Amino acid sequence: MGKIIAFGEVMMRLEVERYKKLEQVNTLEYSFSGTGVNVLASLEKFGCDTLLLTKLPSNRLGDAAVAYINRLGINTSAIARGGEYIGMYFLEHGFHPRPSTVCYSNREESSFCTSSIEDYEVFQDASHIHFCGISLAISPKIREITITLAEKAKKEGLTASFDCNFRPKLWKEEKDVIKRAYEQMLEISDICFMTEKDAIHTLGLETEEKKKKKQIEHLLRIVARKYDIPIIAGTVRQHVASNEQTLQGFIVKEDNVVYSRNYPLTVYDRIGGGDGFASGILYGYFHRFDLKKMVEFATAAGVLAHTIAGDSPLSTAKDVWRLVNDLHDELER
Amino acid sequence: MGKIIAFGEVMMRLEVERYKKLEQVNTLEYSFSGTGVNVLASLEKFGCDTLLLTKLPSNRLGDAAVAYINRLGINTSAIARGGEYIGMYFLEHGFHPRPSTVCYSNREESSFCTSSIEDYEVFQDASHIHFCGISLAISPKIREITITLAEKAKKEGLTASFDCNFRPKLWKEEKDVIKRAYEQMLEISDICFMTEKDAIHTLGLETEEKKKKKQIEHLLRIVARKYDIPIIAGTVRQHVASNEQTLQGFIVKEDNVVYSRNYPLTVYDRIGGGDGFASGILYGYFHRFDLKKMVEFATAAGVLAHTIAGDSPLSTAKDVWRLVNDLHDELER
Amino acid sequence: MGKIIAFGEVMMRLEVERYKKLEQVNTLEYSFSGTGVNVLASLEKFGCDTLLLTKLPSNRLGDAAVAYINRLGINTSAIARGGEYIGMYFLEHGFHPRPSTVCYSNREESSFCTSSIEDYEVFQDASHIHFCGISLAISPKIREITITLAEKAKKEGLTASFDCNFRPKLWKEEKDVIKRAYEQMLEISDICFMTEKDAIHTLGLETEEKKKKKQIEHLLRIVARKYDIPIIAGTVRQHVASNEQTLQGFIVKEDNVVYSRNYPLTVYDRIGGGDGFASGILYGYFHRFDLKKMVEFATAAGVLAHTIAGDSPLSTAKDVWRLVNDLHDELER
Amino acid sequence: MGKIIAFGEVMMRLEVERYKKLEQVNTLEYSFSGTGVNVLASLEKFGCDTLLLTKLPSNRLGDAAVAYINRLGINTSAIARGGEYIGMYFLEHGFHPRPSTVCYSNREESSFCTSSIEDYEVFQDASHIHFCGISLAISPKIREITITLAEKAKKEGLTASFDCNFRPKLWKEEKDVIKRAYEQMLEISDICFMTEKDAIHTLGLETEEKKKKKQIEHLLRIVARKYDIPIIAGTVRQHVASNEQTLQGFIVKEDNVVYSRNYPLTVYDRIGGGDGFASGILYGYFHRFDLKKMVEFATAAGVLAHTIAGDSPLSTAKDVWRLVNDLHDELER
Amino acid sequence: MGKIIAFGEVMMRLEVERYKKLEQVNTLEYSFSGTGVNVLASLEKFGCDTLLLTKLPSNRLGDAAVAYINRLGINTSAIARGGEYIGMYFLEHGFHPRPSTVCYSNREESSFCTSSIEDYEVFQDASHIHFCGISLAISPKIREITITLAEKAKKEGLTASFDCNFRPKLWKEEKDVIKRAYEQMLEISDICFMTEKDAIHTLGLETEEKKKKKQIEHLLRIVARKYDIPIIAGTVRQHVASNEQTLQGFIVKEDNVVYSRNYPLTVYDRIGGGDGFASGILYGYFHRFDLKKMVEFATAAGVLAHTIAGDSPLSTAKDVWRLVNDLHDELER
Amino acid sequence: MGKIIAFGEVMMRLEVERYKKLEQVNTLEYSFSGTGVNVLASLEKFGCDTLLLTKLPSNRLGDAAVAYINRLGINTSAIARGGEYIGMYFLEHGFHPRPSTVCYSNREESSFCTSSIEDYEVFQDASHIHFCGISLAISPKIREITITLAEKAKKEGLTASFDCNFRPKLWKEEKDVIKRAYEQMLEISDICFMTEKDAIHTLGLETEEKKKKKQIEHLLRIVARKYDIPIIAGTVRQHVASNEQTLQGFIVKEDNVVYSRNYPLTVYDRIGGGDGFASGILYGYFHRFDLKKMVEFATAAGVLAHTIAGDSPLSTAKDVWRLVNDLHDELER
Ligand SMILES: [Ca+2]
Ligand SMILES: [Ca+2]
Ligand SMILES: [Ca+2]
Ligand SMILES: [Ca+2]
Ligand SMILES: [Ca+2]
Ligand SMILES: [Ca+2]
Ligand SMILES: [Ca+2]
Ligand SMILES: [Ca+2]
Ligand SMILES: [Ca+2]
Ligand SMILES: [Ca+2]
Ligand SMILES: [Ca+2]
Ligand SMILES: [Ca+2]
Ligand code: NI
Ligand code: NI
Ligand code: NI
Ligand code: NI
Ligand code: NI
Ligand code: NI
Ligand code: NI
Ligand code: NI
Ligand code: NI
Ligand code: NI
Ligand code: NI
Ligand code: NI
Ligand code: NI
Ligand code: NI
Ligand code: NI
Ligand code: NI
Ligand code: NI
Ligand code: NI
Repeated sequence: MGKIIAFGEVMMRLEVERYKKLEQVNTLEYSFSGTGVNVLASLEKFGCDTLLLTKLPSNRLGDAAVAYINRLGINTSAIARGGEYIGMYFLEHGFHPRPSTVCYSNREESSFCTSSIEDYEVFQDASHIHFCGISLAISPKIREITITLAEKAKKEGLTASFDCNFRPKLWKEEKDVIKRAYEQMLEISDICFMTEKDAIHTLGLETEEKKKKKQIEHLLRIVARKYDIPIIAGTVRQHVASNEQTLQGFIVKEDNVVYSRNYPLTVYDRIGGGDGFASGILYGYFHRFDLKKMVEFATAAGVLAHTIAGDSPLSTAKDVWRLVNDLHDELER
Repeated sequence: MGKIIAFGEVMMRLEVERYKKLEQVNTLEYSFSGTGVNVLASLEKFGCDTLLLTKLPSNRLGDAAVAYINRLGINTSAIARGGEYIGMYFLEHGFHPRPSTVCYSNREESSFCTSSIEDYEVFQDASHIHFCGISLAISPKIREITITLAEKAKKEGLTASFDCNFRPKLWKEEKDVIKRAYEQMLEISDICFMTEKDAIHTLGLETEEKKKKKQIEHLLRIVARKYDIPIIAGTVRQHVASNEQTLQGFIVKEDNVVYSRNYPLTVYDRIGGGDGFASGILYGYFHRFDLKKMVEFATAAGVLAHTIAGDSPLSTAKDVWRLVNDLHDELER
Repeated sequence: MGKIIAFGEVMMRLEVERYKKLEQVNTLEYSFSGTGVNVLASLEKFGCDTLLLTKLPSNRLGDAAVAYINRLGINTSAIARGGEYIGMYFLEHGFHPRPSTVCYSNREESSFCTSSIEDYEVFQDASHIHFCGISLAISPKIREITITLAEKAKKEGLTASFDCNFRPKLWKEEKDVIKRAYEQMLEISDICFMTEKDAIHTLGLETEEKKKKKQIEHLLRIVARKYDIPIIAGTVRQHVASNEQTLQGFIVKEDNVVYSRNYPLTVYDRIGGGDGFASGILYGYFHRFDLKKMVEFATAAGVLAHTIAGDSPLSTAKDVWRLVNDLHDELER
Repeated sequence: MGKIIAFGEVMMRLEVERYKKLEQVNTLEYSFSGTGVNVLASLEKFGCDTLLLTKLPSNRLGDAAVAYINRLGINTSAIARGGEYIGMYFLEHGFHPRPSTVCYSNREESSFCTSSIEDYEVFQDASHIHFCGISLAISPKIREITITLAEKAKKEGLTASFDCNFRPKLWKEEKDVIKRAYEQMLEISDICFMTEKDAIHTLGLETEEKKKKKQIEHLLRIVARKYDIPIIAGTVRQHVASNEQTLQGFIVKEDNVVYSRNYPLTVYDRIGGGDGFASGILYGYFHRFDLKKMVEFATAAGVLAHTIAGDSPLSTAKDVWRLVNDLHDELER
Repeated sequence: MGKIIAFGEVMMRLEVERYKKLEQVNTLEYSFSGTGVNVLASLEKFGCDTLLLTKLPSNRLGDAAVAYINRLGINTSAIARGGEYIGMYFLEHGFHPRPSTVCYSNREESSFCTSSIEDYEVFQDASHIHFCGISLAISPKIREITITLAEKAKKEGLTASFDCNFRPKLWKEEKDVIKRAYEQMLEISDICFMTEKDAIHTLGLETEEKKKKKQIEHLLRIVARKYDIPIIAGTVRQHVASNEQTLQGFIVKEDNVVYSRNYPLTVYDRIGGGDGFASGILYGYFHRFDLKKMVEFATAAGVLAHTIAGDSPLSTAKDVWRLVNDLHDELER
Repeated sequence: MGKIIAFGEVMMRLEVERYKKLEQVNTLEYSFSGTGVNVLASLEKFGCDTLLLTKLPSNRLGDAAVAYINRLGINTSAIARGGEYIGMYFLEHGFHPRPSTVCYSNREESSFCTSSIEDYEVFQDASHIHFCGISLAISPKIREITITLAEKAKKEGLTASFDCNFRPKLWKEEKDVIKRAYEQMLEISDICFMTEKDAIHTLGLETEEKKKKKQIEHLLRIVARKYDIPIIAGTVRQHVASNEQTLQGFIVKEDNVVYSRNYPLTVYDRIGGGDGFASGILYGYFHRFDLKKMVEFATAAGVLAHTIAGDSPLSTAKDVWRLVNDLHDELER
């Protein structure tokens, strides 16, 4: 199996110590993340070879970002350097029922958002490339680059995956622009990560079903057929109490809908949970797991990602299998 | 609406990192608080204009206290400076079922406890003043100042509120001295914060009711009538398990008793919960909310105060409304 | 009552800030612990006089270990100094369902593991000595020293206790070597800490009972009789959900099996829980508590040890009684 | 004496722990500063009443900035809120001969840089206003606002001061645009902070003198006369070795040039040194010190500012006088 | 040689991270110290056996103090427990020429200051006892206890030492009361630590000598003779630049004045420097060093104490000899 | 130019916060280093492509080490994994004249020290390989591997460099074994890092010269000729005062001895200074600098390495050139 590429923005995460507010501290903890970084970090932990396509500024913050991504084991040799800024977000961790808050810097001027197709010329010896819906939203230019890269990749024989990740606040376009962009990516992709909400909000589909699972089964089968998507995968999350939740994964393949077990879940750090799941599906896909095994592995990977501080999942395949097999102890010694 | 004044002692809180014991660490985190500071900090977050009446030493600790209170947005221009000491308390956070512990320095010699009425001459352009039962307990001199200030404020047309906050350990007086002091404050006040326990322990009332709510309804109606108190408010707390609790607010107005919803509550930092509730009632009172809306807002404010590290609540009115309307998400982005 | 001695290895615990992974941090918190240290630290808090028998290197790490053990109030005057290394373990705290992990340095070369009987010549004015099964496992030489010391202590009139603490990973010997070592210690001991698992895995006993308590009652009565052990004590732990558990203590004395209440338990720091229980049994034994009081005190001590960061329990007898009497408040002020 | 106003941008300073590089840490310490904040913070410590004119975003970062500036004692009631971003700079502290480095975020989109004259309508009851050359550089719009505010202030009877603070990297304009902007501010100002370098680089003056002091005496006398500036003040810094330097202040008034003592100086935190000096001159000016006393006080204030972590000087007038009188001990107890 | 006792107050030192001001931080580092603690901590490091006579409160702060003193290796078994408070001081580290500042809590109400002679009944098997002039100053009661203990010790055959440590701010008495108290201690003592300043300020002596060394030689010879003091020792400190100083020790014995080398000294933490010197003289005295060797060892011990964070010196005798022999390397590996 | 390889042990550095002693803290900062890591980290910063040959354990510490080395940008793909332990050293930073101290764990059992030649089979596309004298000392097996690898590399056309780095404490062999090992490496190497001390202590050479430079010129010319070493390089360090030193580099090539400027140097972190110099020489060698330029660049690189916390130099070529050209400012903004 060749390298796994991800294309996407790298952001600096600056966070307040749990569970304080910004005014109560004078230090921030920082890390670097982004959908691409997160999915690749997880795949590296699973033992895959990865490569990140992005652009970072030629300054000390860019240097620190590269160092951080290196630390995750991701190949940074194809990262373009130039431009002046990196997008940032400031995170205050909530304590239920007080929500976490996020405050963004101006990412429109970031090196990534002002990059051009020339910054990303190579797929090297990769066999797969992963994209994220956020790249469609942040600017028309990056949207165009995303679709161009996806088409090019397919032409060169790579498989492609796409995480819908619809963030209404990031979009400043009309509904049909959004729909068209999403449709182009869905048509290209071998694997799509989405839920019934994406089908409704980006593709404009409708259903009379009331229950979530029924909606998923109804709508995503339509999507799979309409856009000819070999695999659609996603999760169903339910709140139990305080920060106790449950997480259940699903895969839609043709008319089949396969579910994982429904995992109880105490959330420690919500961000990156979806990327953990996505990396699990990709890992199963690359290693030709059957659907049941794939969704079970992916959901367990997603559950573990919620227990990891920071955006990037850090569990090994062995860690994930242990959870799938329910063999977790509280302490290994 | 004019400024809201609070009168009371400022203490230095020195706390051990969660969830260690004093011997296990070599650093302490510090902040400054007190009932007055806490109520005003919360009202500032709600958008009100506030002013603190207290006395702090003319040394580096006093300077640091003023800086800290400034940071909360509270007007510190009327704080008297002089004397030599500030009261302190050392806090070890427990982890259920291990209780938190508190260890006090000698507050009797504090600048506040040795202050005199001349230190507090102005109400400026205020419309309301808030007092706390702790000021009645710490010394005869401060008790006298408290009552004098309350009477003066009423004479000058301010409304007054009083939080009973009965702390048996602080009192060295006979029961009737305590009762008389409390009665004087109750008679003066437009709003009193109390529970059935205050009625029993400070006023010597009795009831044959067994259930907490029945006791509240029985006793506090008597208190409201007897001392002619327009509004009595308080909360009922129930332990569910570990640090899971529920919190329900009530208002007694004449013969009516109005309850809020019963909020589930995971306690992060217990101190300041009552001040959060009190600030919510005051905010509703200043903005002429009806009783139901007032008690709902106040209880949600109290719930959020339990999720905030430190004594002083830091939620905005918008944050509180979101909880009242049950619109809290785990992450806003 | 004379001094209480414990014999055993001291290790350096280097731990990652909760709940991060090693790669996410650049600092480690350190402390020193070991079964002997933990049991004695707890007994010191209960007001007993203690003495540690161990060996530590003559370097800065050994100095720091002695300083740390001094801080716990344990008498360090009999600690041998020499050799070159101290055993270490690196701890990453898990967040359920992600398990904690432990990674050891090479303890085989530690000052303790390479020590000889001459390093431990004195019982001073002690009345009791405590041993641990780990000392049987780490090397044949230490196994021999342990048994020799135990026999010598009995001859000089001390009572002895032994915590089976069977750790399969530490043993490199045949089953019968293990069994023989355990049998020797059981025969010598006045008090043994063990569960049905120890009976099965170290002594090779079998039972047809399916339920844990039935197994305990069946097997440990046999053990008590066979090896003539006055008191056998241990705990039954049940997982409820996430890190919610229950803990119930038992004592087997002749044919009696006495249980404590079943305590709900939120685990903050699992390590040292068993040592907390053991110290409680020993304390009850030294002060001639009846069995019911002894097991109740010990189990509450064990519960509190799970709420303490680090290996060594730090609760006073007063703290433990308060939990036994269910008088814990969330905050004492 | 009325309030002292300063107009200028507030930036977030995010700094790496001394003396590490960004890649070596995962936390950053943060504070808020800017020429205006720094000068006012120092004047507050001297006992003056101050008011900041600036604009901050309506988000959590803006809230934190206001809280921070409150903490310094500066009146924040006139700060406009709106827009989306705050300028930031990332600081790595050097260790001689390794220089400190600074890396900026995109300040062009900051709330301040996109503000308009309507955001700053009031001088309240102020008697003086302070400006800084950075406001001339960051955008044509802010340049225009600066000059408009300065003219308005003069018309309303305030005195004005201007710190040239020429930063070539910030300017994207032609030389004559720069010169014209500076000339306008010089003509308006009662006090200008500048050195011979400003005269050469912004005003295009020339001198054949080789020595710094001679250049100052030659050029700044010309400037004082030409632009009719009552007081010009600045400092001469000399490197001795490593981070040992000397600092000497001067005032040019008509044809007089008055120097302070030449203070030895070990630099702890270079940023804010100039603002400390400026605040000292202003303090002397407001309290009608003679020139010698004024320059001595200002230079000592500047020296102390180099010993304070962060941008904002925090020494009291008493602290400064003690240095002027050479009465500093290493420890006061 | 028997145990070395010291009698004196234990204080809690709460310090701001170098080199910040109190308002700039929200954590304080804490430790416990006092002249007695410091001298004994150093002697323990030199290998002596020590015992502290003091009184600490029966609360969590008292517990933490005992744990801290245990950590230093000092025998805490004779420490009285009771009373309510511990004295505290808050320390901001200066950065030259900005001085360090110290701010005290109310030590008059401390457990020590309110203790009585009954709290200190035993000298156990000690051979020497050390006192400090601060004990004479803090209250008449402690002054009386100090002198009573000193007399008792002499009667029981112990040798005694006394560190004048004159702190004018602590004294509220007339000059002759001070003089009489000092004279009593001088007469009792075998070793006195003092300088020419103590002779002038406490004993009222006068000299026409202008140079420090001449004054020492003139005045301390008189003192030695008049009060029949076998050994008087002290240091001469000279400021070179910034925090570069020199330190030279002296011993006056009968008519001889013996000096150590003059050590260059970069001050890291000034507090405890004098106690380091005193412990060195005592160590030399106990081990019968000749005067030259004694003063050399003591001065090097004093120099090293200035390089140790916190009040208590932590260098071993081996460390001190290495400095005496000028064999220090920058790194030992 | 191809990849630069370094072969050598990776150690975990666990250090106490400046300038405390181990007993004063409860946290340690950690990093990973070693001569190979340090030289490659620096070369990566200069823009070269590097590869590390070493062996690390297959556990969490090994994972963390790889992540750390990745962060430095070094290619870790050839690192062997297996064995159980990693060598460690504990560092207390001294404060002049108190020396730093280092305390090692048992490195003899480390994965590296127990590795075999099969663990290191590839030079990939490298053009140069770097060795260190420590590899000769730690075990006969590693000594053999080192020499075998060096010979193999030469055979395959790589150039080789060797840093003598003689550490007497690490050697347990006879003088002639040491000499023979060194001679073999000298004969193979294209560049040797050594001083007159190495010539005397490892090769047994003698000189009657008294002055360091004369000794260098005398002895190293002999060495260069005898072992046919194209380039010998090293530094001369002189102590000025406290931690002020000077550093001057030299290159011996045939009969020429070329010196750099003599740089003043304030030491912040001594470790890695020599590796910084070595990386500078290698960089100059790869880019065919003339000798003067090479030694100047290398010495400046060495000076900067002394200002970097941790073992690994982190300055870019641009940073180094700026120091060579004396263009360093205290702050770049
Ligand atoms: Ca990889
Ligand atoms: Ca996460
Ligand atoms: Ca306000
Ligand atoms: Ca709170
Ligand atoms: Ca003890
Ligand atoms: Ca524990
Ligand atoms: Ca003000
Ligand atoms: Ca500064
Ligand atoms: Ca001792
Ligand atoms: Ca010190
Ligand atoms: Ca590389
Ligand atoms: Ca270094
Ligand atoms: Ni694979
Ligand atoms: Ni909820
Ligand atoms: Ni989170
Ligand atoms: Ni309002
Ligand atoms: Ni409970
Ligand atoms: Ni709390
Ligand atoms: Ni006892
Ligand atoms: Ni579980
Ligand atoms: Ni744990
Ligand atoms: Ni003034
Ligand atoms: Ni320089
Ligand atoms: Ni700086
Ligand atoms: Ni001795
Ligand atoms: Ni000075
Ligand atoms: Ni200090
Ligand atoms: Ni190159
Ligand atoms: Ni030296
Ligand atoms: Ni160092």
